[in-house]
Amino acid sequence: MAVKVAINGYGTVGRRVADAVAVQKDMKIVGVVKTKPTFEAFSAMNKNYPLYTTSKENIRLFEEAGLKVEGLVKELIDEADIIVDGAPDGIGIENKEKFYIHMKKKVIFQGGEKPGTADVSFNSTSNYKNSIGRQFVRVVSCNTTGLCRTLGPIISNYGIESVSAVMIRRGPDPADIKKGPVNAIVPDPVTVPSHHGPDVNTIFPDLNITTVALKVPTTLMHMHTVNVKLKNGTSTDDVIGLFEKAPRVVLIKAAEGIKSTAHIMEWAKELGRQRSDLNEIAVWHESINARKGELFYMQAIHQESDIVPENVDAIRAMLEMESDPLTSVRKTDTAMGLKQWWK
Amino acid sequence: MAVKVAINGYGTVGRRVADAVAVQKDMKIVGVVKTKPTFEAFSAMNKNYPLYTTSKENIRLFEEAGLKVEGLVKELIDEADIIVDGAPDGIGIENKEKFYIHMKKKVIFQGGEKPGTADVSFNSTSNYKNSIGRQFVRVVSCNTTGLCRTLGPIISNYGIESVSAVMIRRGPDPADIKKGPVNAIVPDPVTVPSHHGPDVNTIFPDLNITTVALKVPTTLMHMHTVNVKLKNGTSTDDVIGLFEKAPRVVLIKAAEGIKSTAHIMEWAKELGRQRSDLNEIAVWHESINARKGELFYMQAIHQESDIVPENVDAIRAMLEMESDPLTSVRKTDTAMGLKQWWK
Repeated sequence: MAVKVAINGYGTVGRRVADAVAVQKDMKIVGVVKTKPTFEAFSAMNKNYPLYTTSKENIRLFEEAGLKVEGLVKELIDEADIIVDGAPDGIGIENKEKFYIHMKKKVIFQGGEKPGTADVSFNSTSNYKNSIGRQFVRVVSCNTTGLCRTLGPIISNYGIESVSAVMIRRGPDPADIKKGPVNAIVPDPVTVPSHHGPDVNTIFPDLNITTVALKVPTTLMHMHTVNVKLKNGTSTDDVIGLFEKAPRVVLIKAAEGIKSTAHIMEWAKELGRQRSDLNEIAVWHESINARKGELFYMQAIHQESDIVPENVDAIRAMLEMESDPLTSVRKTDTAMGLKQWWK
Repeated sequence: MAVKVAINGYGTVGRRVADAVAVQKDMKIVGVVKTKPTFEAFSAMNKNYPLYTTSKENIRLFEEAGLKVEGLVKELIDEADIIVDGAPDGIGIENKEKFYIHMKKKVIFQGGEKPGTADVSFNSTSNYKNSIGRQFVRVVSCNTTGLCRTLGPIISNYGIESVSAVMIRRGPDPADIKKGPVNAIVPDPVTVPSHHGPDVNTIFPDLNITTVALKVPTTLMHMHTVNVKLKNGTSTDDVIGLFEKAPRVVLIKAAEGIKSTAHIMEWAKELGRQRSDLNEIAVWHESINARKGELFYMQAIHQESDIVPENVDAIRAMLEMESDPLTSVRKTDTAMGLKQWWK
């Protein structure tokens, strides 16, 4: 029997997670919450996701706009086995106080919430088992997820002395027309190191990692330059082989015309996935360089979608539907049509 | 008596060097070369720089446009004591074969030419003396100049085990409307490490430096994140003190509203210099962080203008007008109105 999943906040993350959940054999969407009758709400209706909202006044507004509303958010939470909170940054903790604690519900928060919001932080291939049976879990941010996906296999195979990474972040998301920068490079934060290293430590507590971050005028993807000091030396070819078989990591080649984040997104359109997303972390084949116990690579992160499959796996862990991480990851990836790393 | 300087190529670099030379007491501009009768040519005429061009056909075009031409490039080279070659990347080496070698002239090339084009690479505060009396000298690129300006004092004061730097480069210059990227992050080169490290080694041959580079959609400045392993430990305050007194390095503060490269360029406008340039390297005060023998900082490079004072100093070295580097740097900086690091 499929577990009942509610999506509280049907925005950039919420609507993607809804679609990813809907294609899993062991899950179903019992409803999504939207605060305004925008195009996303119509999209949810067209997909037959029961629509909930946050006040009686809102129900009236939705019905005036031609949208059928099933009820208020509290009723949806009541019905669900688990809630994926996709509310804007900082609202998740408010929802926790308002609903989740006293209603004794299991909830997945997103990386925009502070680590303390949940009992544990989550990355499917790195620390799945820590979330088994938990009430509150936080899927780490897109950037942290990207670092964990590629650093995890390196830790397991060679050991890591230290990591130094620079995160060249996209300014706003594609439709976020109110934010910049339009023509500037913005140290963000201007202090070094950035908070991304400590966030990776919520997944790998013992990893010695230092990060620096800045924002640039682009909307498509984040990029990371990663420099790893290895405990045990390796070769460039070995690392390429490692990433070739790593879940949710894809190798891309400048030689095949994928020369920028824009090219990655064009290539992703050819994959034919929902919203032309790229849920995997894209590592440039040509950038991988291992020498003298030191490893370099560059990777790109589709900030809107890489954390989507992690949300699906977190559901399985928290509801104790699957105890083996890779079995869950494989189920998720098969249903979503992601890289077949098991082949 | 002032030495006679010719500017072969009156573009982004050439017209800036012309103005910087013109304000030095020991130098004068005997002419500038332009291939087309564009606004830069009118600007040169208005500044009373004798105008030269590359063919008789061009002379006719210039005169039709209302520009007085003194003669052809060969005549100007003949008259000059030294030539600053400001031709587009790769044309300098052609000019060398065509004119400079057989005319036995001293010439400064820019960083866009390959290192082998000249006998020696040049940075005023790092290796001035190597260029004394030389015929062909190459002022290293804006990025390499930026790294040398801040790494030089660190090498002298603490010693460096290794440097790892990421260069987040502006896409095109502000008026370069044909180039991108508009909305992408472009690894450039996609291989790691980039050529910038070896270029720094033309100035500091023994420095262990690794660089990674990428282009982003902005026109204003480059940015560098720099991570230095020190031979001798130091403190954040010591490094701040070091940069405060370093020539051609300025400390900027996010706390004072300088939060991005765009803010730096706005601040530079308040300085009232020619073209609102910032010839110094701007280091974010808040980004400087020294701990356990490791140092981090972020700096921004005004790609169009940081190498301008180096061209002036290179003239003094090559023509043996001044044997002491800092005496030349101080003369140049006083005339140009740059940071008074000697006070």
